[in-house]
Amino acid sequence: MGKLLRVNLTSGKMNEEKIPDEVLRDFIGGRGLGVKILYDELKRGTDPLSPENKLVILTGPVTGTPAPESGRWCSVTKSPLTNTIHDSHSGGDFGPYLKFAGFDGVIFEGASEKPVYLWINNGNAELRDASQLWGKDVFATSDAIIKGNKSVRVACIGPAGENLVKFANIINEKHRAAGRGGHGAVLGSKKLKAIAVSGDIRPPVANPDALRQANERVVKKIHEMSATGDLLPKHGTAVLVNDINEEGGYPTRNFQTGVFATAERQSGQTLTDTLLMDRMGCWGCIIRCGRVTKVPAWSPYSGVGEGPEYETIWAMGAQCGVDSLEPIAKANYVCNELGLDTIEMGNLIGLTMELYEKGYIEKELTRGLDLRFGNPQALVELVWRTAYRSGLGDDIAEGGAKLAAKYKAPHLFMGVRGQGLPAYDPRAFQGHALGFATSNRGGCHLRAYMIAGEVVGEVTGQKISFDPVETKGKAKWVTIFQDLYAACDSLVVCKFNTFAVGAEEFASTLSAVTGWQYTSQDIMKTGERIYNLERAFNIREGTHGEDTLPKRFLEEPMPEGPKKGQVVRLNEMLGEYYQLRGWKNGVPSKTKLSELKLDRAADEVGV
Amino acid sequence: MGKLLRVNLTSGKMNEEKIPDEVLRDFIGGRGLGVKILYDELKRGTDPLSPENKLVILTGPVTGTPAPESGRWCSVTKSPLTNTIHDSHSGGDFGPYLKFAGFDGVIFEGASEKPVYLWINNGNAELRDASQLWGKDVFATSDAIIKGNKSVRVACIGPAGENLVKFANIINEKHRAAGRGGHGAVLGSKKLKAIAVSGDIRPPVANPDALRQANERVVKKIHEMSATGDLLPKHGTAVLVNDINEEGGYPTRNFQTGVFATAERQSGQTLTDTLLMDRMGCWGCIIRCGRVTKVPAWSPYSGVGEGPEYETIWAMGAQCGVDSLEPIAKANYVCNELGLDTIEMGNLIGLTMELYEKGYIEKELTRGLDLRFGNPQALVELVWRTAYRSGLGDDIAEGGAKLAAKYKAPHLFMGVRGQGLPAYDPRAFQGHALGFATSNRGGCHLRAYMIAGEVVGEVTGQKISFDPVETKGKAKWVTIFQDLYAACDSLVVCKFNTFAVGAEEFASTLSAVTGWQYTSQDIMKTGERIYNLERAFNIREGTHGEDTLPKRFLEEPMPEGPKKGQVVRLNEMLGEYYQLRGWKNGVPSKTKLSELKLDRAADEVGV
Repeated sequence: MGKLLRVNLTSGKMNEEKIPDEVLRDFIGGRGLGVKILYDELKRGTDPLSPENKLVILTGPVTGTPAPESGRWCSVTKSPLTNTIHDSHSGGDFGPYLKFAGFDGVIFEGASEKPVYLWINNGNAELRDASQLWGKDVFATSDAIIKGNKSVRVACIGPAGENLVKFANIINEKHRAAGRGGHGAVLGSKKLKAIAVSGDIRPPVANPDALRQANERVVKKIHEMSATGDLLPKHGTAVLVNDINEEGGYPTRNFQTGVFATAERQSGQTLTDTLLMDRMGCWGCIIRCGRVTKVPAWSPYSGVGEGPEYETIWAMGAQCGVDSLEPIAKANYVCNELGLDTIEMGNLIGLTMELYEKGYIEKELTRGLDLRFGNPQALVELVWRTAYRSGLGDDIAEGGAKLAAKYKAPHLFMGVRGQGLPAYDPRAFQGHALGFATSNRGGCHLRAYMIAGEVVGEVTGQKISFDPVETKGKAKWVTIFQDLYAACDSLVVCKFNTFAVGAEEFASTLSAVTGWQYTSQDIMKTGERIYNLERAFNIREGTHGEDTLPKRFLEEPMPEGPKKGQVVRLNEMLGEYYQLRGWKNGVPSKTKLSELKLDRAADEVGV
Repeated sequence: MGKLLRVNLTSGKMNEEKIPDEVLRDFIGGRGLGVKILYDELKRGTDPLSPENKLVILTGPVTGTPAPESGRWCSVTKSPLTNTIHDSHSGGDFGPYLKFAGFDGVIFEGASEKPVYLWINNGNAELRDASQLWGKDVFATSDAIIKGNKSVRVACIGPAGENLVKFANIINEKHRAAGRGGHGAVLGSKKLKAIAVSGDIRPPVANPDALRQANERVVKKIHEMSATGDLLPKHGTAVLVNDINEEGGYPTRNFQTGVFATAERQSGQTLTDTLLMDRMGCWGCIIRCGRVTKVPAWSPYSGVGEGPEYETIWAMGAQCGVDSLEPIAKANYVCNELGLDTIEMGNLIGLTMELYEKGYIEKELTRGLDLRFGNPQALVELVWRTAYRSGLGDDIAEGGAKLAAKYKAPHLFMGVRGQGLPAYDPRAFQGHALGFATSNRGGCHLRAYMIAGEVVGEVTGQKISFDPVETKGKAKWVTIFQDLYAACDSLVVCKFNTFAVGAEEFASTLSAVTGWQYTSQDIMKTGERIYNLERAFNIREGTHGEDTLPKRFLEEPMPEGPKKGQVVRLNEMLGEYYQLRGWKNGVPSKTKLSELKLDRAADEVGV
């Protein structure tokens, strides 16, 4: 680990760099290394869509090794949606194939004048002309680069990225997405259309025997736990629809309630019974939660593709008051083609519908589209319009905070730090709510998936359940999840692992791969280091904002269902959270930062 | 008449020019003048999408005067779809408003480096930056330029024109379109996004009393005739659906048959009973055939807009095997927003469906869209994909001849000179078939609308009917229509006039407006001059091709209905047509060209 390619898109110059061992030791790879690079290299106040912003594509030391669930990669940049540090992750084959191509990561900086794409094969990299690809969608771009060569994998942007949609993604293998905060727009601003990787350079493993032993334990635990051994393989992530709805926390019609009466029509079971064609796994995966689906011919929404995942089903479904899986799946397919993030897109359609129903958006602006909740047509049409900034799509493309502000109803945007919330009503899950509020990259379920304890009841291989409406003890668990996940994202392995394994297994795997000894304490400390450095980045930018949630969750009691009457009691948790973190009012102390060997951050932002 | 603005988009230089009286006398204005300018100024072999091509926006001497039906304008260029001379016409207010802005027309040449739009107000013209408009659709562009100023009219291109779709239109007042041959793409190649016009300069009328008298006669005849006085006002152009279907000439599923079993579901009466909201007329119109429609909320195709007209209903409907008006109307609305021609678009969707059903287009290329005839979803989805060149849309955007050739089935393209045929199966209407075959701008019903005699039974104010399956005498009528229409397009007045009035009334109107005496013979001779000069243009280019039709019409007998067993008997008419024209095998003789005062053409191409 540690061989990076630096690509200056302004000059076209490329050079290899070796990350020093002590940095790798402290930040591992993936998310941790990306955050470190951006903290060190980015000037305060950098416009995310300017050539001065950088975007780092990274794997981790575990990526592409025989360790299970190691088929992922990540992207780190300053987000044009949130103006914060922002990492995002994707599965498929691309991560391992980047390794096989000879690099652990690529730092993109500057901006090209003309469209280009990066081609890497067995350690050789070249920037190639992409003029003919500019304007093409994800599928056409991928096909045009691959030209039938089965050993090449492509990550690229679609029209949404080119059009600087603030939640445009980078899509690999046509259906796998990273970049809700607009990583696709950052590449669009740099005129980088794609990255194609191929090769047969296998990543080193320091101690293969130890890795084999570690893997056996991980595989065993993945099979043992119900989430990873049964539910995810059988019904995919959509297995959560019924669970979360039954908990009364399935956000419906822009989080107006947590109960969606017809949720069953979009459940994992229904998906399995209707649209499911096949199951898919990422490279090296034994869980295989991916779904290949098809909406049948003659449906007004016919199509084929991967997904929809739980978050997408919710975003295009309950969030918009739509129950049928067919328009949901179709909207998902088109998002993939055009390079849009499905969570943000669906969150925003729901917001648009509430703005419309409440009279903030006038009828004249809709081009005849009925924007009341429940209209399935609105999904697909608004996806097209947003990617191409047509009509209202031009406003939606700016993200929820700007959209709601433009139409004079900022209180209707259900997000944190400019990024929309995903598929869990915070009023139903106090711990998860704290995770949302303190997320460094804005509204996100993947910083601290407290649902694992608050609903699923399986955490790092143990049967652990927390009462979702309880606030006591939640702060501690949120810090544990946040730190563990920061490490997990740096190894890089799939987060679904963490239903079955935790810091101990990560330590064994990482030690075996790197040859450096990590304890579970080292893993957690490294996660804490990363989480603090992200926070420091945002404070330096002045974009850290307040650790809070939209008023709806703090002041409007849940109107119905099992969580009726609940609001988020953030004030019962936030003080304890800051204390545990060693933060003062959301800002890390100098002591804490120094303890984490973040001395520059201690100087720059510590209190 | 005769004050033109020449805009060099390369240099940004603009200057006024006065067309000499003798040219105006011989070519009138509009189409005639445009063809004359292009013949004189364009170098042989000019690439239609290069800066060397020119596009002329024109009105005629009658435009914007109190003469009825004078609210139109025209565009003339070398078409990227057909590589021939190409004129196209549109209604609304834009033509008269261009006059009121102080110019009779604008010649665009060169190409701008950055997007610009032309702003003209009361004789003052300026090129303004359109960087912020580039990428925007027709509605957003129009609104952004008009900014609520009710005295401004805008003609612009949408994304389809920017993306050089070969049948992108120029759209004025959001719903009125000109340019099936890709005039929008020509403007796109020149980076000219829009033309905005306003002012209060009224066009001169040499003899107002004489014009008043002429107008009275025209108004009386328009009211008297059934087509213009009753059917078009009541049901719009869609009144033809049932008539043409009952004649067995309503082309169905890419012209595989002339009978569409469920045509009633898309008839003018059904449109009136279901989607119709309001009736509209162009500036100064007393027929008012325009339709404002709405597809109701909760339809998967909800929307509002103008149209669909007869040709659109057919193109998106029977041509694609779709009968419901809702998806047809929606596809129409989106075409207007994105700047696509509905006839060509529908013709091409039908072609794509036949290519798919017959196995020429493989399933993998459809992105899961069911492309069998009759799938209403395909309409709207392929409109989006074509405007933005997504997936198969990238091939469709090149037009039918290239599309069919790419998929190795050139015989399935139902068009002439690269332009798709409109809504009349030639096998059902021998005279109309000859009009298609000899059209200088490729497949077009508006060069010689023989349907007026072969179906409607009203021609220039008289009850005249021809037997549609008869070939005798048709050549003569085709030349009459072609010449009369060339004059009509040069005055400029609406062709629907010609159900009610003809050369005599045109002569009276034109004499009154210009102060020059025209006889009906002068009108017809001028039309003949224009038609011959167009032909000469195409011959000089080498793009005139053969005056023929796709083999389907010549060799495959109509399989069912009232015209069962018919093929087009072109050889029974073409010889006579050439003889009447004074052409040898499609090429005008030197004698004929000289007789028409086309001496340069006589030298360059005459035989």
